[in-house]
Amino acid sequence: MSSAERFAQRLEHMRPSTIREILKVTTQPDVISFAGGLPAPELFPVETLRAAAERVLTSQGAAAALQYGQTEGFLPLREYLTAEMARRGVTCDADGLIITGGSQQALDLVGRALLDPGDVVLTENPTYLAAIQCFQSCQAKFVPVPTDEAGLIVDDLPALVAQHRPKFLYTIPNFQNPSGITMTLERRRALAEAAARLDLIVVEDDPYGRLRYVGDDLPALKALDETGHVVYISTFSKTIAPGLRVGWVVAAPEILQRLVILKQASDLHSSSLDQRIIHEYLLVGTSDAHVARIRAAYGERYRALDDALAAEMPASYRWTHPEGGMFLWVTGPDDLDSGDLLRRALGHKVAFVPGQDFFPNGEGRNYMRLNFSNSSPERIREGVARLAGLLRENK
Amino acid sequence: MSSAERFAQRLEHMRPSTIREILKVTTQPDVISFAGGLPAPELFPVETLRAAAERVLTSQGAAAALQYGQTEGFLPLREYLTAEMARRGVTCDADGLIITGGSQQALDLVGRALLDPGDVVLTENPTYLAAIQCFQSCQAKFVPVPTDEAGLIVDDLPALVAQHRPKFLYTIPNFQNPSGITMTLERRRALAEAAARLDLIVVEDDPYGRLRYVGDDLPALKALDETGHVVYISTFSKTIAPGLRVGWVVAAPEILQRLVILKQASDLHSSSLDQRIIHEYLLVGTSDAHVARIRAAYGERYRALDDALAAEMPASYRWTHPEGGMFLWVTGPDDLDSGDLLRRALGHKVAFVPGQDFFPNGEGRNYMRLNFSNSSPERIREGVARLAGLLRENK
Repeated sequence: MSSAERFAQRLEHMRPSTIREILKVTTQPDVISFAGGLPAPELFPVETLRAAAERVLTSQGAAAALQYGQTEGFLPLREYLTAEMARRGVTCDADGLIITGGSQQALDLVGRALLDPGDVVLTENPTYLAAIQCFQSCQAKFVPVPTDEAGLIVDDLPALVAQHRPKFLYTIPNFQNPSGITMTLERRRALAEAAARLDLIVVEDDPYGRLRYVGDDLPALKALDETGHVVYISTFSKTIAPGLRVGWVVAAPEILQRLVILKQASDLHSSSLDQRIIHEYLLVGTSDAHVARIRAAYGERYRALDDALAAEMPASYRWTHPEGGMFLWVTGPDDLDSGDLLRRALGHKVAFVPGQDFFPNGEGRNYMRLNFSNSSPERIREGVARLAGLLRENK
Repeated sequence: MSSAERFAQRLEHMRPSTIREILKVTTQPDVISFAGGLPAPELFPVETLRAAAERVLTSQGAAAALQYGQTEGFLPLREYLTAEMARRGVTCDADGLIITGGSQQALDLVGRALLDPGDVVLTENPTYLAAIQCFQSCQAKFVPVPTDEAGLIVDDLPALVAQHRPKFLYTIPNFQNPSGITMTLERRRALAEAAARLDLIVVEDDPYGRLRYVGDDLPALKALDETGHVVYISTFSKTIAPGLRVGWVVAAPEILQRLVILKQASDLHSSSLDQRIIHEYLLVGTSDAHVARIRAAYGERYRALDDALAAEMPASYRWTHPEGGMFLWVTGPDDLDSGDLLRRALGHKVAFVPGQDFFPNGEGRNYMRLNFSNSSPERIREGVARLAGLLRENK
């Protein structure tokens, strides 16, 4: 076998990238897309970011914004984030967090720091597609934790930990991707306590936490963690803009040190310019008002989607009612093949993500994930009409 | 053992980061640093980049510059790079390359795509510190290939390949880091031919190729590669600015596909904004003149360093005479412990990188790497005077 063939064999365990394929399709303007997880570009704070970039590149620090920087990240941004974390109930100092290339890189670093081939990761089921890919690239095995409308069923953890000796549990407590489910406060408390008792590292992925449009904010798992078992990951991708790749990780020192070593080997550091633009943007003081604007718009889009589904979908379809975030999860009849439905839907210029891609072990053919952040209420209604029309013509 | 302890044990094989530690020391303004590998910040094209950022963020495409993008990279930048590669003697189309977070991420992706724990990488000896860290994070073993002033001794490869079955050979043909040695054209031809014959993947790292200040450019190994065995890596970090993390990889399709899958799991894509600013900067058409300016300045700095060493250093010290790049390599007497020397040098406010860090298997205590791109000729002369004074007082 040639080295090219050996090379081709390697990584065969990684599934082809649905996200990447979908990003390509949904660049066609006549396709109404419930796929992808794109924030609404018309809500990006373009002018505030432009002015921030202008200040960074005309300041005394312009050369520093173009130079190599510390692997841990731009110190003033890390200092700002300690205040942001305090708002989320988490006490840490600037050395207690690092900046990453979006939250995706944080997941990647955590996976590489903790996983050897064959190691087990506990996950919600379904769970975030790109987290599956990420941990798959470390050749991890996935063991699902049963969930209900309140989130992970914590009482099942002791048996799962004893049986599988997982390296960590991966969870998205707020407006989970793809299900839209939010873990209740009671479950959060139980999970933080179980993590300490079972000596289980919990990777808390919180990209959407600030995008709540119903009810009150709940504390992060990290805010309930007294033993350093929780690794907290977040990002500016949903609250400012994802094109600047800036996320962060809060973790215990012995974990963070190893993430820094791996990050240095991965890319030395995240963009100095992006970090300083984000920091300069945050200093303006309009970021909370901007997040409120996003929340209002996404809330309206969510209600448009929920209403349209209620009006149009066949009775055999059910869906979740998320209190925030960007996704809603549809359960079709048992005989639905949503992959097949997607292929036909694309012919009708409407797209979604088939549920199967979110199940690490491959079940879930009768589910669909619908994103509502990236289309206007009008297009959402038109998209649901196209989808429902297709389902009716099918029966 | 707790999971925190297991965690601490893992990655123990990775050496602590000299680069990171040195970046910290050399931020003190009174330290004259031959350490690090920082480009000269006073030469950054700040105003042209500022204007480019302004155009990107006031254009029709502003929202796209802030949105998620394709994992492969911004298409117009990849198209531009096909022309740049043609200038380097390499024919490829926009689908034949991908954008990475600097060349460091390209090394990381290649390592992860090709290496399993225990696999062997052939390298020059000494070789680039952060490449060692990167491949170490994949738990690779290193086997050095003998070198002389003409680069890798290609005639030794068949026996090394037969004995160690390496996954790839890693080389920096132009102004090697740390040695400053350039592989001759004859050796390049022999290496390209050997790679095909031995079915050996060659990872060609070319961050400095355009920074030649003596003699004529030599073709890239990739330009001599007719069988797709060469993976070519380069970056804008040395010719524009490293704070925008933009590098690229040219490779055969079956290799590139796997790099894309891994990159998606690593960080989804590189900064959309950075990529567009770089592209907009390149379109201005002043980038060649800017590189000529960097070359002239670095050439002058190199000559200042070489002259100062000739005037000041004890007779028992020798050093290389690179034709470009950013580094010069000093060989001290056999009994020199350059790690110990560094600790004392820092007391005299002068820094360098001890040679030992560049030898994957730990020898090389009597070497030093001196960077000359980041100090003025005056400071270079003062730094050499401090260093030589220390060596004299030592004897």
